[in-house]
Amino acid sequence: MMLNNITPSKMFMGRLTHNSDLLQEITDLCVKENITLGRVEGIGAVQKARVGYYNQGSREYQFIEYDQHLEVIKLTGNVSIKDNAPFVHAHITLSDDKGNAFGGHLAPGTIIFAFEIILQAFEGPELSRGYDEDTGLPLWKE
Amino acid sequence: MMLNNITPSKMFMGRLTHNSDLLQEITDLCVKENITLGRVEGIGAVQKARVGYYNQGSREYQFIEYDQHLEVIKLTGNVSIKDNAPFVHAHITLSDDKGNAFGGHLAPGTIIFAFEIILQAFEGPELSRGYDEDTGLPLWKE
Amino acid sequence: MMLNNITPSKMFMGRLTHNSDLLQEITDLCVKENITLGRVEGIGAVQKARVGYYNQGSREYQFIEYDQHLEVIKLTGNVSIKDNAPFVHAHITLSDDKGNAFGGHLAPGTIIFAFEIILQAFEGPELSRGYDEDTGLPLWKE
Repeated sequence: MMLNNITPSKMFMGRLTHNSDLLQEITDLCVKENITLGRVEGIGAVQKARVGYYNQGSREYQFIEYDQHLEVIKLTGNVSIKDNAPFVHAHITLSDDKGNAFGGHLAPGTIIFAFEIILQAFEGPELSRGYDEDTGLPLWKE
Repeated sequence: MMLNNITPSKMFMGRLTHNSDLLQEITDLCVKENITLGRVEGIGAVQKARVGYYNQGSREYQFIEYDQHLEVIKLTGNVSIKDNAPFVHAHITLSDDKGNAFGGHLAPGTIIFAFEIILQAFEGPELSRGYDEDTGLPLWKE
Repeated sequence: MMLNNITPSKMFMGRLTHNSDLLQEITDLCVKENITLGRVEGIGAVQKARVGYYNQGSREYQFIEYDQHLEVIKLTGNVSIKDNAPFVHAHITLSDDKGNAFGGHLAPGTIIFAFEIILQAFEGPELSRGYDEDTGLPLWKE
């Protein structure tokens, strides 16, 4: 286990841009506001979605595309540093017109219809991602 | 993008009333505590559920009803103002006895079995909903 | 409805241990940090999962096991007191290699592949679980 004490800092609430890329918008917001540690959550709807599933055996992300209109029943994620820049790691839960739920690791290619966000910055020790041997993932390093 | 600075205000934690309507209970709570800006989250179980899917083409909500006992694996939402009153916009993720997940926009008709809630109020510029031409939805206006 | 005023206290952000039990790790963390009131959230991936569905008729949990690698698209929960010790009540939403979503009440037997957590402690009146006649569940008592 690797755990840091953090304290709440700036907080934002609002909505993202219709037709824009969901992950890119959140990342741009963190860059603009200089947020390198934080959490993000939101609900909304997308015009299409693209999510990742990490194959723990092959150690590669597989991507799943949904070329349909979906509700975002939950986006949740954290903000830290990767390659010296703010990095958003978010997972997303989606639902379709039958109410069935889908989801995974939020990937580029998920296009906003409407999206309401709450973003909270933290102060605390830097959390920076680097290659983790146990998993093959870019995880926070001591 | 439209984004406001907010600051945390009052916070509440507790459980909602067995047999009551989930969306109505949260709305009543916001009215009683005079919360017009905030976030809500919770987990629990419901006796039946009703969720909305926004049809982006026809610009109408379609409603899906589940006449069965379900876990609420996540409720998440925000509080703002609509028609001069506190308005709760929440999405819900549900699961059944096989573990399959469902969900959508929380609608009236979702009846609580047991529900544990955390509600946080914010201070900041008023967020008020009005008709949005791009989507047909009642979104926050500048 | 039963609702307490709470105020934010200590907050932690980090990652949990590869190969360990997800519910046990979070519980251990609360015991170690002496957190008896709080909220927890996180995203990650698990090597296998075990979730509960509460049968409202028979008043017993049924457990569902997933012997496969899954994304955790959301863990959300609260911390309170049960049997005089910190008790974590969490629900989990999972997704598989097709993007299909599953979930329920987080049970022992869910093994971490990688998991990123945010844990927030609160100050406020003690919330302690005891048998609730309406539901058969261990709910917070007045």
